[in-house]
Amino acid sequence: MGCLEFLKDFFLGFWDYETPKVMVVKDKKLGVIYRAVQFLVITYFIWYVFISQKAYQETETRPESSVYTEMRGVALLGDAVQDTTECVRPSEGGDVISTILRKEVTHDQTQGTCAEHYSVANANCTRDSDCIQGESDFDGHGQRTGRCIRYYNYTFKTCEIKSWCPIEEYAVVREPALEQAINFTVFIKNAIHFPKFKVLRGNIKPNKPKKLLRCHYHPETNPYCPVFSLGFIAAQAREKFSELCRTGGIIGVFINWKCDFDVDPSACIPTYSFRRLDMRKNLPSSGYYYRFAKYYHKDGVEYRSLIKAYGIRLDVIVHGHAGRFSLIPTIINTVTAMTSVGICSIICDWIMLTFIDKNEVFSEKKFDDVSKQPSQPITTDFTLTSYGSTHSDLSDGVPL
Amino acid sequence: MGCLEFLKDFFLGFWDYETPKVMVVKDKKLGVIYRAVQFLVITYFIWYVFISQKAYQETETRPESSVYTEMRGVALLGDAVQDTTECVRPSEGGDVISTILRKEVTHDQTQGTCAEHYSVANANCTRDSDCIQGESDFDGHGQRTGRCIRYYNYTFKTCEIKSWCPIEEYAVVREPALEQAINFTVFIKNAIHFPKFKVLRGNIKPNKPKKLLRCHYHPETNPYCPVFSLGFIAAQAREKFSELCRTGGIIGVFINWKCDFDVDPSACIPTYSFRRLDMRKNLPSSGYYYRFAKYYHKDGVEYRSLIKAYGIRLDVIVHGHAGRFSLIPTIINTVTAMTSVGICSIICDWIMLTFIDKNEVFSEKKFDDVSKQPSQPITTDFTLTSYGSTHSDLSDGVPL
Amino acid sequence: MGCLEFLKDFFLGFWDYETPKVMVVKDKKLGVIYRAVQFLVITYFIWYVFISQKAYQETETRPESSVYTEMRGVALLGDAVQDTTECVRPSEGGDVISTILRKEVTHDQTQGTCAEHYSVANANCTRDSDCIQGESDFDGHGQRTGRCIRYYNYTFKTCEIKSWCPIEEYAVVREPALEQAINFTVFIKNAIHFPKFKVLRGNIKPNKPKKLLRCHYHPETNPYCPVFSLGFIAAQAREKFSELCRTGGIIGVFINWKCDFDVDPSACIPTYSFRRLDMRKNLPSSGYYYRFAKYYHKDGVEYRSLIKAYGIRLDVIVHGHAGRFSLIPTIINTVTAMTSVGICSIICDWIMLTFIDKNEVFSEKKFDDVSKQPSQPITTDFTLTSYGSTHSDLSDGVPL
Repeated sequence: MGCLEFLKDFFLGFWDYETPKVMVVKDKKLGVIYRAVQFLVITYFIWYVFISQKAYQETETRPESSVYTEMRGVALLGDAVQDTTECVRPSEGGDVISTILRKEVTHDQTQGTCAEHYSVANANCTRDSDCIQGESDFDGHGQRTGRCIRYYNYTFKTCEIKSWCPIEEYAVVREPALEQAINFTVFIKNAIHFPKFKVLRGNIKPNKPKKLLRCHYHPETNPYCPVFSLGFIAAQAREKFSELCRTGGIIGVFINWKCDFDVDPSACIPTYSFRRLDMRKNLPSSGYYYRFAKYYHKDGVEYRSLIKAYGIRLDVIVHGHAGRFSLIPTIINTVTAMTSVGICSIICDWIMLTFIDKNEVFSEKKFDDVSKQPSQPITTDFTLTSYGSTHSDLSDGVPL
Repeated sequence: MGCLEFLKDFFLGFWDYETPKVMVVKDKKLGVIYRAVQFLVITYFIWYVFISQKAYQETETRPESSVYTEMRGVALLGDAVQDTTECVRPSEGGDVISTILRKEVTHDQTQGTCAEHYSVANANCTRDSDCIQGESDFDGHGQRTGRCIRYYNYTFKTCEIKSWCPIEEYAVVREPALEQAINFTVFIKNAIHFPKFKVLRGNIKPNKPKKLLRCHYHPETNPYCPVFSLGFIAAQAREKFSELCRTGGIIGVFINWKCDFDVDPSACIPTYSFRRLDMRKNLPSSGYYYRFAKYYHKDGVEYRSLIKAYGIRLDVIVHGHAGRFSLIPTIINTVTAMTSVGICSIICDWIMLTFIDKNEVFSEKKFDDVSKQPSQPITTDFTLTSYGSTHSDLSDGVPL
Repeated sequence: MGCLEFLKDFFLGFWDYETPKVMVVKDKKLGVIYRAVQFLVITYFIWYVFISQKAYQETETRPESSVYTEMRGVALLGDAVQDTTECVRPSEGGDVISTILRKEVTHDQTQGTCAEHYSVANANCTRDSDCIQGESDFDGHGQRTGRCIRYYNYTFKTCEIKSWCPIEEYAVVREPALEQAINFTVFIKNAIHFPKFKVLRGNIKPNKPKKLLRCHYHPETNPYCPVFSLGFIAAQAREKFSELCRTGGIIGVFINWKCDFDVDPSACIPTYSFRRLDMRKNLPSSGYYYRFAKYYHKDGVEYRSLIKAYGIRLDVIVHGHAGRFSLIPTIINTVTAMTSVGICSIICDWIMLTFIDKNEVFSEKKFDDVSKQPSQPITTDFTLTSYGSTHSDLSDGVPL
């Protein structure tokens, strides 16, 4: 037919509404199964997806967060006063802060030559020829001079090295731990911003009195006071403080924000949790320490005290999750829910046709085979009549 | 029937194509509603999902980023020269950098005993018995010796403590602010890598002349010069610099990468935004300061100057988002779109059957009730004839 | 009809099962197309979505991670011994660690007045009037005194400034690079925790012997020994170490955890990759250096040595991805798969009606036009009979 007519047909057809023809099976067994499956699917969506998972909300899981930490306290180590100014590094108060609990000091090191430690690979020697000059073991303390000397005031000999002398392993002095540091307090200020929702929240109640830093955190009575004592933190992380003093350790301070902005934003208060982050089980590698040195001059020569400091490092990690009602996800999830219901019929059809439909009543009705066989005009005719007629009738109103 | 036959049937049936039978309703009202709903759904998908949300792209939202910062400048504080080498900490130039704007110095502290501050809980005393020896208030400055002494050159008395003396609250000296620091410039170098797309981008134009550090950032004229003056930053964050000098503050520098790799990657240039991160409203806790000490010896005794430094801390936060066309998400979203259109008929069916379908013409045609009643061979026969026959006809080509 | 009857109908109808009527087209061509499309869709889902993308798992992509780094080694610079205690900053061992490879030192700077560098904008002068007092170029080294003086021991003159003198550009001394640092080793300890799966993993095998720090990393033979030499890292990042000594550079150390907890969790071992993060191509800005100063007093006057340190900065970046079977995603994706199959019929219908269905056999059968024309009782009657009857028959069991 001509293009014009085609267009005409198209425009006539455009405003027709097409709806699938449905066979209604009056079969209780099947009906019950069908409704049961439907019920399951709908319940899942309403209860799990919408209520429990809040699928009707758009969420923001990576907020902008800023952390400020400050450690305060004074402790006595023997007769010496140690306050946080001395123990805490770095002092700038970022999201990682560490305090020294125990020191192993090597005093009065100076650049020169001395005996290598005996544990180092082939450091033990009997004559100079045992020590190759210029060689340096990557685990050793310096470059070998090629001489074989007495190991300090011992009788055996090791290779001589160019290094800061004396070497730490030999001259180190262990200081007692700063047990009193258990009373040090750390003040953690955290401001969080959800760009998508334009909400700014802090872990401190606005317009707090000046005495802020004198309070102590408590989940119920004092959720707005982010001041924790090291003892409290260790306890929360289920660690013995004395043990931490010995080996040092890294403890994660987790600030968890879980906000639902469909309710009052001021209702979103962070919770704090603490967990040790370095592994405990494998002793050799667990713990936390670092080395630094203090340099000074004595009559023209540069000396240093090498300090191996064991301590607690606090890593403040902020988790934020906020949600608020939004149309788009709601629509999408509703659609998914509706389409999923469609799955029921697939299951039920299968059940029906396999188990219930003994004498093929349903299948006959449901399925209507067609195959075009130009060779059999009759058939085609028949079809055309039995169906086409109805068609023409209804559309053109020509009675049979 | 035998398994063999079943298989035969199956293989015959396997290549059949099944398509739902559809009832075409020639009803303008309904048609219009149907098309309207369809139009809405399709528009939503094409416009919102595909054009606005770019659902045809696969995205990468957490790129690998490295930040390098360097602060430069010289300022005069009275007669003294202060350059960034002195003010800026840490000096390593990471993604957090702070500069000191104002100092409160406590000179010549030394370890010893002195009077506790009067504000500390029950520090005020009249006789020694008021001060329990060894006790130390967690808010105090040290451990009590048990003696009650004059509070420095005042008339009243407080408990004596073992600490760095004199205590800060009494002996602190406030220095003027380093107003000239407003001209300090910070150079922020940021390289970003999208592993999924294997694209490496930087916020500096390659092959730039050596004079890089002499330019100033400007969104239009100079987007490739990431050099910002502290004054510019404060202004962008809508903060008074003089105010920042007084209390200090933490300012977030946000580098936002929004890249569409369907167009030329070199077109993706970052934008910079600045916002104060510590809370302003609640005065007691807002602001930024930290303490550090300078140690020195005077005739054998160790002294220190305790410095409480107020300053600006810049937290550089990088947001990256890149997208590029990918087949998978395109397919998935198209499918979702198509299935969603199906929802229309659910709505329209309901409308049709409830409002339009007065004398149940449509429902009759749409729904075809079946219930198997073996007790009535006729019915079944009938069905078999009216339908089955057609079936046999068409398949076996036996005319009625 | 009355509400009561309506309810009755509703309850009767509620247990009915509705299934769409289907037309079976016995047409090989179409059948093949149909199955082909179906096959494609199903394959895509089974192979890509389920096997390759593991859509049946719930995933955790942002685990809690803690990094501890320690650098060790001794090198000789000429006659001087340099160990990591001196070169490495910050010493606390966080996830960013840098070591100094080359220094440019400006010795014995002191506060005073000296000549500005000639390269600074209008610093060159012939008479005092050329230098405006109090002015300070933001690229200069200090505030101008208003005098025009000789540029150190040169013949030409520049403006005098108040600054740390002499200025770096004039007095700087380049030291040789610390080539031996290529043997420095960095020990990277990383513990990772997947909160959703409650799994804690580390990059060190538990119960390792004490000799941990003496091993070297190797992907196959020694995956559990996270000790890397700077030379190894540079090689992995495809950088010349000597080049890094000259300009410095930032290298990213990526620890990639890809864990499948459906198999034994102990099977998830991290892989390490290294890539230079600062841009190489644009020479002026690439590289890594920072400035710091050492202060000292000589007969009452404060001096400093300004050090511009070039070095390697290692940024340790942890990527974590873990998955474990979960019912919810499995269901959702299966549903999506099934619905997607529905798309096939849309395509095939179109093909059928456009290309195959020459003499409108299929369309006749598929589409059944209806339009309510109260004006034609017959039609309606007819419909009612031909269908309604069947209906009544089947339901009431009254034979025709």
